[in-house]
Amino acid sequence: MNFRMILNILGKVLLVESAFMLPAGIISAVHREWRAAIAFAVMLAAGLVCGWLMSRRTPRRTDIYARDGLVTVGLTWLMVSVFGGMPFLLSGAIPNPFDCFFETASGFTTTGATILSDVESLPRGLLYWRSFTHWLGGMGVLVFLLILNPLANRNSGESMHLLRAESPGVRITKLVPRMRDSTGILYRIYIVLTAVQFLFLLFGGNSVFDSVTLAFGTAGTGGFAVRNDSIASYSPYTQWVITVFMFLFSLNFNLYFLLLLRQFKKAAANEELRAFVVIIAVSVLLLMLNTRHYFTTFWESLRHVSFTVLTILSTSGYVTVDFDQWPQFSRTLLVVLMFIGACAGSTGGGLKVVRVQLLGRTVVRGVRKAIRPNAVSLIHSEGEIVDDKTVQTVGAYILTYFLITLAAGFLVSVDGFSMETNFTAALSCMSNVGPGMDAVGAVQNYGGFSNFSKFILTITMLIGRLEIYPMLALFSPASWKR
Amino acid sequence: MNFRMILNILGKVLLVESAFMLPAGIISAVHREWRAAIAFAVMLAAGLVCGWLMSRRTPRRTDIYARDGLVTVGLTWLMVSVFGGMPFLLSGAIPNPFDCFFETASGFTTTGATILSDVESLPRGLLYWRSFTHWLGGMGVLVFLLILNPLANRNSGESMHLLRAESPGVRITKLVPRMRDSTGILYRIYIVLTAVQFLFLLFGGNSVFDSVTLAFGTAGTGGFAVRNDSIASYSPYTQWVITVFMFLFSLNFNLYFLLLLRQFKKAAANEELRAFVVIIAVSVLLLMLNTRHYFTTFWESLRHVSFTVLTILSTSGYVTVDFDQWPQFSRTLLVVLMFIGACAGSTGGGLKVVRVQLLGRTVVRGVRKAIRPNAVSLIHSEGEIVDDKTVQTVGAYILTYFLITLAAGFLVSVDGFSMETNFTAALSCMSNVGPGMDAVGAVQNYGGFSNFSKFILTITMLIGRLEIYPMLALFSPASWKR
Repeated sequence: MNFRMILNILGKVLLVESAFMLPAGIISAVHREWRAAIAFAVMLAAGLVCGWLMSRRTPRRTDIYARDGLVTVGLTWLMVSVFGGMPFLLSGAIPNPFDCFFETASGFTTTGATILSDVESLPRGLLYWRSFTHWLGGMGVLVFLLILNPLANRNSGESMHLLRAESPGVRITKLVPRMRDSTGILYRIYIVLTAVQFLFLLFGGNSVFDSVTLAFGTAGTGGFAVRNDSIASYSPYTQWVITVFMFLFSLNFNLYFLLLLRQFKKAAANEELRAFVVIIAVSVLLLMLNTRHYFTTFWESLRHVSFTVLTILSTSGYVTVDFDQWPQFSRTLLVVLMFIGACAGSTGGGLKVVRVQLLGRTVVRGVRKAIRPNAVSLIHSEGEIVDDKTVQTVGAYILTYFLITLAAGFLVSVDGFSMETNFTAALSCMSNVGPGMDAVGAVQNYGGFSNFSKFILTITMLIGRLEIYPMLALFSPASWKR
Repeated sequence: MNFRMILNILGKVLLVESAFMLPAGIISAVHREWRAAIAFAVMLAAGLVCGWLMSRRTPRRTDIYARDGLVTVGLTWLMVSVFGGMPFLLSGAIPNPFDCFFETASGFTTTGATILSDVESLPRGLLYWRSFTHWLGGMGVLVFLLILNPLANRNSGESMHLLRAESPGVRITKLVPRMRDSTGILYRIYIVLTAVQFLFLLFGGNSVFDSVTLAFGTAGTGGFAVRNDSIASYSPYTQWVITVFMFLFSLNFNLYFLLLLRQFKKAAANEELRAFVVIIAVSVLLLMLNTRHYFTTFWESLRHVSFTVLTILSTSGYVTVDFDQWPQFSRTLLVVLMFIGACAGSTGGGLKVVRVQLLGRTVVRGVRKAIRPNAVSLIHSEGEIVDDKTVQTVGAYILTYFLITLAAGFLVSVDGFSMETNFTAALSCMSNVGPGMDAVGAVQNYGGFSNFSKFILTITMLIGRLEIYPMLALFSPASWKR
């Protein structure tokens, strides 16, 4: 393990994170939120000093292997979540350290689950910071760092291990020959899309502050809102804008890259995109039929149902309507959608559509193999044959996903909430959605859990956001062996 | 597809099944339950005639391939469940055909889920028949047939395909070199163990009727009782006897074979057995701690908790205490145990301990592979390396298991019961346990579901008992292609 290199990277991340506290601090100062402003100033100073000390010495060896990559990413995300939560603690806005850790990890992992029942009482600077963590976490903290400061030699593959660990996705389609080279382009697409949404929101009569924070939350598919009723009291126009952008941020960003290259046909032929659209269409239809008595007009129903389907599938977690009150069939459908999540290569969470497609094909192949044990049965994806190793890796991933969700739901059951609460909370955190059902339903929050459960759910969010392995690697003896 | 051969086998099964209605009919006649006695007589006659017509012509070709085996088994189990439910319908005891199908499939699959709220009002003959379906279904209907009447040439491998399809298990350990030859021995062990339990129950002061039906239900790990309060009002002695035998019937029957061969060390070294004992010990400990305020004495607590752990793990579903009222942690632990189930090669259901062990190892290997992508990581089981194909097959099986449970829970949500009810009902049926939680809890029943949901859950039980593929093969086009 290259500890010096890891320390160096952690230091640089700390520098970046504390630098980003500057705008939040300024916003607090402008609004005369002195306690918050001082908290940001203290953390900014502390972060710069620590970061400088940690990254001061250039490590002799700059080589990073897979396990270093995993451990670095795991430690980075733990660090940014703890450090980023300090302004909440120091300002006194959130007095419990477990709550601060939960809230900030929820921000960076773009979960959007909150322990706060009254967000409107939070200082504006902290509200901005909360939403900003979504935006930074959406694309990845280390990805950002790598664009600013390529580690040593960018072509040597070191950064690749980090990128892979931070957002591994399923590399079945290789739309872009060298993912690494296109990281900068992808981040630019991200920035442009966020800016476009900001303008649309501003155009709809929203304040600059609301437009910025909502755009941050949508882009990262996070879900932290600045109003207590989430998105319910915004205009239908604003709700539709958010719905459309939740859809756009759920797509594989490589598709936008294809659009830039004018390969429209190739983009439209994407199987995952098609499946995603079908899932949305079917879900909206079923939910509209099942909840028809809950709305007065067709358009109201279409708006709320579309918003809800997209908020769950994109794993944002914004809320316009209390879907926890919908009929059981609708509620259960939403839970199923929580498993699925967004497309691979997006800022959304969940299992990802492409993995669910592979899952379906693995199940069908299992049946075929039982019927004709000697026949060769291949699995295709995006027009290509998927090799057995990938099928096995994806299978193990999905099983681990189910198991961790089950384990987290089981552990938090010590608090005595309903089984529905526990398992939907665990699933929602694992898939980085935000709201669950019952006691963590659309208009509820996670404040009722014990510190133990909050800690478990925080770790679950991090496991879900980093696609399992970086967090598990931290706890695995295999990582630490010489 | 060898349709003539399949028809021939179905006919023979029908002959066997209707012949078994004779004792039930006699019991009804002795108790002057005339409507039930007539119903049994009619079905006995009808079954003999139909069975004779179907099996009259010896098929020219007697070859059976994997898909014929799957389809035969699937059709057999559907047939015995429908035919076996007719006495309930004809006698007027259960007027709804969907209920009859549910109840009988629940019997043969050894689920023990019931739609009846008052079993004591059922005629004795029907109660006997209900419990007998557990006993026959536990070891397998076709297995029984094959012992009576080896199809054509027993060495030609035809029967092997049927046996495999009816109780595939996980063939990692090959304790007995030729499974087929030992089928008779295994059935003899089954009969002896049932007889021993019957004597223990009789010795404890239970009536012959109670002793027979309880022994049938325990041996098949079924769970149908003849009293409305299940096992709650039996003596502690009887409850302990059932607990011990639920444990014995949860073990791989090959272990008893080893005992007969005096290979005690080999039996004790069995990894699955050890894991099963550890799971029981840990569960009993955790549940006793968590429910300590629910019982007055240590022994009372030990008795009820041991019973409950074994009833869930063995997937019997007998009940001595309303565990649905226990704390959330205990309830959730029981749900986790429902997934696990008994040992492979037993009469119990669930994923089976050996598969759960493999699942755990697959997850650990996934983490190891992420940390060291190029290192070779092998999975061991029972001291041997498990080949990649088996790992993949088991992985696909578990994923399919989860998906079917999820799908069944989703489909029955149309009835509007709580999510907890729907998913524990689906899981309980898939794992052939019997009771779930909430509206299908320990002291509740499945009578409240709609016909649609009952049908879905019935199919789920059959899918679970036959380890998925025979039932899915019926619906797969690949089975019916020339």
